[in-house]
Amino acid sequence: MSGDAALRVGIAGLGTVGGGTVALLEAAPARLAERAGRPIEITRVSARDRWRERGIEIGGYGWCDDPLELARAADVDVVVELIGGSDGVALELTRQALRHGKSVVTANKALLAHHGAELAATAEANDAVLAFEAAVAGGIPIVKSLKEGLAGDRVERVFGILNGTCNYILTVMRETGRDFADVLAEAQALGYAEADPSFDVDGIDAAHKLALLAAIAFGGKPRFDAIHIEGIRQVAAVDIEFAEELGYRIKLLGTARLTPNGLEQRLHPAMVKKSAPIARVEGVFNAVGVEAEPVGLVMHEGRGAGGGPTASSVVADLVDLARGNRLATFGVPSATLADHEIAPMSAHRGSYYIRLMVLDQPGVLADVAAVLRDQEVSIEALIQRARNPNQPVPIVLTSHATIEARMTAALAAIGDFATVLEPPHMIRIEPD
Amino acid sequence: MSGDAALRVGIAGLGTVGGGTVALLEAAPARLAERAGRPIEITRVSARDRWRERGIEIGGYGWCDDPLELARAADVDVVVELIGGSDGVALELTRQALRHGKSVVTANKALLAHHGAELAATAEANDAVLAFEAAVAGGIPIVKSLKEGLAGDRVERVFGILNGTCNYILTVMRETGRDFADVLAEAQALGYAEADPSFDVDGIDAAHKLALLAAIAFGGKPRFDAIHIEGIRQVAAVDIEFAEELGYRIKLLGTARLTPNGLEQRLHPAMVKKSAPIARVEGVFNAVGVEAEPVGLVMHEGRGAGGGPTASSVVADLVDLARGNRLATFGVPSATLADHEIAPMSAHRGSYYIRLMVLDQPGVLADVAAVLRDQEVSIEALIQRARNPNQPVPIVLTSHATIEARMTAALAAIGDFATVLEPPHMIRIEPD
Repeated sequence: MSGDAALRVGIAGLGTVGGGTVALLEAAPARLAERAGRPIEITRVSARDRWRERGIEIGGYGWCDDPLELARAADVDVVVELIGGSDGVALELTRQALRHGKSVVTANKALLAHHGAELAATAEANDAVLAFEAAVAGGIPIVKSLKEGLAGDRVERVFGILNGTCNYILTVMRETGRDFADVLAEAQALGYAEADPSFDVDGIDAAHKLALLAAIAFGGKPRFDAIHIEGIRQVAAVDIEFAEELGYRIKLLGTARLTPNGLEQRLHPAMVKKSAPIARVEGVFNAVGVEAEPVGLVMHEGRGAGGGPTASSVVADLVDLARGNRLATFGVPSATLADHEIAPMSAHRGSYYIRLMVLDQPGVLADVAAVLRDQEVSIEALIQRARNPNQPVPIVLTSHATIEARMTAALAAIGDFATVLEPPHMIRIEPD
Repeated sequence: MSGDAALRVGIAGLGTVGGGTVALLEAAPARLAERAGRPIEITRVSARDRWRERGIEIGGYGWCDDPLELARAADVDVVVELIGGSDGVALELTRQALRHGKSVVTANKALLAHHGAELAATAEANDAVLAFEAAVAGGIPIVKSLKEGLAGDRVERVFGILNGTCNYILTVMRETGRDFADVLAEAQALGYAEADPSFDVDGIDAAHKLALLAAIAFGGKPRFDAIHIEGIRQVAAVDIEFAEELGYRIKLLGTARLTPNGLEQRLHPAMVKKSAPIARVEGVFNAVGVEAEPVGLVMHEGRGAGGGPTASSVVADLVDLARGNRLATFGVPSATLADHEIAPMSAHRGSYYIRLMVLDQPGVLADVAAVLRDQEVSIEALIQRARNPNQPVPIVLTSHATIEARMTAALAAIGDFATVLEPPHMIRIEPD
């Protein structure tokens, strides 16, 4: 392609993001061409239903009933894959397009979290580019930051609030004192949560993004299967209240870092100090922090989802392609992507918040303390509110840093006490 | 240059940033080469004093007594300009290097704020690149975000905390209730502020950065001369106290936006709602917010200064160059850079905080209110604490949105009252 020839784009999937992408590419084509060095033109589109009302005009583009046609079409240089799903048509389309030497821009985090290494190799072998800024916190240029802006740095930790639905639910729970189920139902009614909320509230969506961030940050293959995942269903209103009292906020936090035991990737509710920048990210907002040497901490914050922000990232990737900015999928040649050792969660070292529901009778605390002592876990703070003798009351404690295996063993022993009425509730506390 | 040939770098200036850049390039050259697609090698260096102890080894590089030699040296592909200053050697070196077709990476905000348009044109005419990620909030990849990550968006507003020294001083003033002069002296003793602090506390340094952000955000020539600049010397401890009471934080804020009157660029102390993300950026940290369509608000936060973070940005620019990512200096071809109309500050529309020191006697408030009414300025909140009849007391009020010319006229009239003992103190309130 000559420098002035248009970059010809085929779009598969015309939902919110696809529609937003069409609208954005058509909004100011001259300005875009100036930034990109040449025009970016939609030549073909494909979607499930050709005639659905979308609020955008698609009559001027070639229509493909079968999205796989885009992979072979002679008038398509780049396929924009907005079908979704880790397998099926999205995977097939991406594979075929890359094999035909066409670059692919995708917002599909599930696809890359599961098949990223294979697809990166396919892209490379066919001299094509596989770009996915839109797959991680749409609108926040975090993939570009990690791959290019911090190219000279050694990343020590990447972490973030990667799911707006969960952050919205946790924020409302804190502000209103209401329970998870209640706030989830409201979020569903408002359209902030899906009818089947599992992908969001069980942490799957955020874990997909974490796998991609970790791959870029540490130059490894994405390993979704190696992420320790806990969602937010178990976060109780009372835990949020105790967190406030102890100076923390509870966030669904994804964290990846290289430890002496290997790559640690975990996605779970975490207590973060109220004064930490990440603690102040509220509502549907996403945020990603990168701790690196020598830059220190860099934070990125934005909506991270929705048609507009995600389309913004899709178009940024297209502009990069038009300009000839051809980066390796995960920042380094795919043959050099490391197979990092996976650090077992039992080896995780950190502090813990524990809530026990106990019968309010003498000696319970002594028993609990003895178990913790036997596991060499030392207590940092303790809140005990005895109110009704022989009735259930909470005992809350926070520990100093310890190894997760010790804490797990202690909690198993404590959970067996007759005076402990529910399985112990545990939330990890993040270091500053 | 072939794909595998090294990118040969000549560095002018070996202070904190220059030393940091050398250290970073030498720390993990193989990893860098992987990211960059080819090695990045320092071939020559130049500094004022060859023999000064810097904690880095420079014996293996060619030495140039005169930095201008780097512009002509056959074994230099890119000149890294870390000399500083808007004119003199830095300008001459940049001009000559570009004219010789060598790309230039610089951390020099003053140089680009004053000569950016000329140098961008020179770079383009000679097929060279002029890159300056390190010039704006070092370590925070904000130039890349604006030029590439948000390439598809229409920026509505770019704003930020662009000077760590000022933010540190304002943070300590708020936390301790101490006065500006006192905190400045301490900051100087701690090395957070220069012996001559004018560049920082009078807003010059931050305004240089704002001029560059505005140029990229709105595709215009940098216009440092058109920025309304006020530093933080006039911020009193009592204003910070009243701000807290009214729900605001005071920040030295740079803001650029396109208004119906033209490009508005202003750098001054501003009250921002405590709940706004920018309000929570404390101490030496920098932050840049971009409000754009369709992405919404994207925030970037980090140290923004210092040898390590700034060197991180220099190296990111070098990796870009090595990879062949050749962007126009301000994101679009220099011939298309707009000469925006400049919006006069008198046309600025916003809310205001006013503090008057008045003699505590009947009728003062009525006189003040009458003047504001005559200028059609309506009062939003008022704090009057009469304590000592016939002694000076503060009257604090905030206005609804009005035009700055009206507020200026009102304050001139109010300042003339015999009962008003000091010129009125005014701080602009930022919209959400």
